[in-house]
Amino acid sequence: MTVSRASMAEDGFEFSRLIAGFWRLKDWGMNDQEVLAFIEQCLELGITTMDHAMVYRSEEPFGRALALKPELRDRMEIVTKCGIRPVGFGKLGAKAVNHYDSSPKHIVASVEQSLRDLKTQYIDLLLIHRPDYLMEMEEIAEVFDRLESSGKVRNFGVSNFTTHQFAALQQACDHKLITNQVEFSPYNMGALDSGVFEQAQAYGTGPMLWSCLAAGQLMTGADEKAKRIMAAVNIVKEEVGASCAEQVIYAWVLGLPCNPFPLLGSSKIERIRQAASSEQYALTREQWYRIWEASNGAAVP
Amino acid sequence: MTVSRASMAEDGFEFSRLIAGFWRLKDWGMNDQEVLAFIEQCLELGITTMDHAMVYRSEEPFGRALALKPELRDRMEIVTKCGIRPVGFGKLGAKAVNHYDSSPKHIVASVEQSLRDLKTQYIDLLLIHRPDYLMEMEEIAEVFDRLESSGKVRNFGVSNFTTHQFAALQQACDHKLITNQVEFSPYNMGALDSGVFEQAQAYGTGPMLWSCLAAGQLMTGADEKAKRIMAAVNIVKEEVGASCAEQVIYAWVLGLPCNPFPLLGSSKIERIRQAASSEQYALTREQWYRIWEASNGAAVP
Amino acid sequence: MTVSRASMAEDGFEFSRLIAGFWRLKDWGMNDQEVLAFIEQCLELGITTMDHAMVYRSEEPFGRALALKPELRDRMEIVTKCGIRPVGFGKLGAKAVNHYDSSPKHIVASVEQSLRDLKTQYIDLLLIHRPDYLMEMEEIAEVFDRLESSGKVRNFGVSNFTTHQFAALQQACDHKLITNQVEFSPYNMGALDSGVFEQAQAYGTGPMLWSCLAAGQLMTGADEKAKRIMAAVNIVKEEVGASCAEQVIYAWVLGLPCNPFPLLGSSKIERIRQAASSEQYALTREQWYRIWEASNGAAVP
Repeated sequence: MTVSRASMAEDGFEFSRLIAGFWRLKDWGMNDQEVLAFIEQCLELGITTMDHAMVYRSEEPFGRALALKPELRDRMEIVTKCGIRPVGFGKLGAKAVNHYDSSPKHIVASVEQSLRDLKTQYIDLLLIHRPDYLMEMEEIAEVFDRLESSGKVRNFGVSNFTTHQFAALQQACDHKLITNQVEFSPYNMGALDSGVFEQAQAYGTGPMLWSCLAAGQLMTGADEKAKRIMAAVNIVKEEVGASCAEQVIYAWVLGLPCNPFPLLGSSKIERIRQAASSEQYALTREQWYRIWEASNGAAVP
Repeated sequence: MTVSRASMAEDGFEFSRLIAGFWRLKDWGMNDQEVLAFIEQCLELGITTMDHAMVYRSEEPFGRALALKPELRDRMEIVTKCGIRPVGFGKLGAKAVNHYDSSPKHIVASVEQSLRDLKTQYIDLLLIHRPDYLMEMEEIAEVFDRLESSGKVRNFGVSNFTTHQFAALQQACDHKLITNQVEFSPYNMGALDSGVFEQAQAYGTGPMLWSCLAAGQLMTGADEKAKRIMAAVNIVKEEVGASCAEQVIYAWVLGLPCNPFPLLGSSKIERIRQAASSEQYALTREQWYRIWEASNGAAVP
Repeated sequence: MTVSRASMAEDGFEFSRLIAGFWRLKDWGMNDQEVLAFIEQCLELGITTMDHAMVYRSEEPFGRALALKPELRDRMEIVTKCGIRPVGFGKLGAKAVNHYDSSPKHIVASVEQSLRDLKTQYIDLLLIHRPDYLMEMEEIAEVFDRLESSGKVRNFGVSNFTTHQFAALQQACDHKLITNQVEFSPYNMGALDSGVFEQAQAYGTGPMLWSCLAAGQLMTGADEKAKRIMAAVNIVKEEVGASCAEQVIYAWVLGLPCNPFPLLGSSKIERIRQAASSEQYALTREQWYRIWEASNGAAVP
């Protein structure tokens, strides 16, 4: 059984429902062969979508691994992000002040570097990483056009945008923004009430979801809230017969009606394999709300 | 003088401007004859719209009273709600975890029980009681279609929805959602700034308003804020020559420009009668803002 | 070098990019000749747009000065506002309770007094000063029509409106609302996240910005936050070679991509002159985010 596939928007371009996140690839301590093996195992599980960003410094090691077996490129979709410029990132970084930059010049320069580092001819999905208060909507629309017609980028989206920011950029763009990648987990449920999920449904897009395990806070039961959530997760785990808590958390996230695409973040292929089975656990509403209630600290009103 | 009538949306279906709320009917200690007498007195006052919900457990006693004089059915509009499933409500409730359920299966089951309990062939207005994070917009749209074409429900709306939730569901529905029933009182003025009233105006719908007396907190002057509000209400009461504070509070709520339909909640027909006269007191802007200022704790900026 | 000119909306009606604010004219201690001299010096700098409001009590002294040289009228655009009714403002004020009033009757009466006080035949831009919870959108639309066709008012807008309020009023109005005048400064950055700027871009309007120096709190370094901001402003001042901190602050505000029109508030023509040169300092993104970061208290995430 492999992970299912779906379009984020109605254009037919498919991604894997669960996405391999390479946020921490630099910290995984893998050599190129090990990265390659990890990628191949993901692909075997049906996890074909690979999430990167310039600021993760994940593209270069990923690209080296991919160069060992270039024929894998056609079997995957690569997502990457641009627009954050922190100190310490060379020409794409900042001189003195961490900032956002969604100018055409920076977007193009970042994409060019991503292509070089990833050792690929195209990016499947490019995201503006953070909402830049100085973004010129029309200019972004125009650079998206150029990147698309040159064949360098196939789809566009954003990350961490408010509903207002998404609506304004979408209005300026001919290209459909196919996703808004936002944080969501049983620990951080803010997106349930901010309108981003309802906007995704109204616009017919599918949000990518980052930090679904709350950066480890959930699995380690870091505080009272995390402990409450994990207690509820474990009850549901028994009920559905899942083999680990992570499966239940991903199943909970996948229960959202907004066509969500959760990111995985682990370097352990065994944990990836377990997560890849999450789709088989469709939680009942009582199970879903049990975890919501544990996070909320009180039952639904 | 009887209570006026108005459409919530532009479709011409009329409700009474003031609505009898049966939230606490179970606690009123009335026998069927007494409920019937209460209903008839409401109708005489022009209060023809009756607000229920599955979770109020008000439908069954109301239906028994109605069965004593079935010809009253055509003289009233019945509103009821579905979608909350708490523990202790049999098949329509929860097994273990209070939750929301706006699945077609539950909506239909809830409507069927409402029809049986209310001893009626149709519901004039069905509301989704709370925004279910798991609601599938398209499925709700489809079940609304079925309920309408079967003649079981004549109008549809929601309750306690944010603007994002309302917009997304309305976009998915062919049926116009004719109301969003939200909390509003001089004590709880959040709806003034949340956008729900402006959205109602932009969509051409009329919000129903619950807990206009803040569940009794206002009348009992429960805290400093309630005391400030009641002091202002009493000044206005003298100015307009109203006979009780409740008339002023309902007149204040009726002053909203968004075509509001306040719910009454009392079991005392005398208080209902007094509230029914509220429409005659059109507050001046100074009177309206006096009460707003008392609640806000400071004058307008 | 004079201040540039631009349309707020796409209708071609031009204002000066920097606007003279007469909020405190009553406190400036100027006689009519001095006010006239101030106005003439503003005009020479290209600052042709003059911002008033009924409640500033600035119109009458401004009008007396203008009467000394009526030919200046055609060289300026006058903005004024209506709709706040505080105690102590005669017939246009309140009897007892400060309140908002956007009734047609009050709007017309306020415009008539503004025309008399300003000694002019027309107002270039009329703003609803604050969002009145009791505003009847259709009535406002209708009175705007009347004021426009009578030649008394040439453009319309609002001030301090939320996105919901702006959208609802715009939907009711045939006239384009060309601006939402809101508070914005490095000290008060709330508008960056409230959606009003994105809405301005989506609707193709240009926000006017009030209190860009945070009513003096910035220049006096009133607290730790103000001190942090001023330290950052001074670094940028050195980098760009500006002659004063105010130039940097206005350049920072002008850096917004939403077609902003900042108000100046000083009575000192020398400070106005310096502010008028702000447009020449286009901040880099690092400079812009340095000031944002100082206000935020932490770098961008």
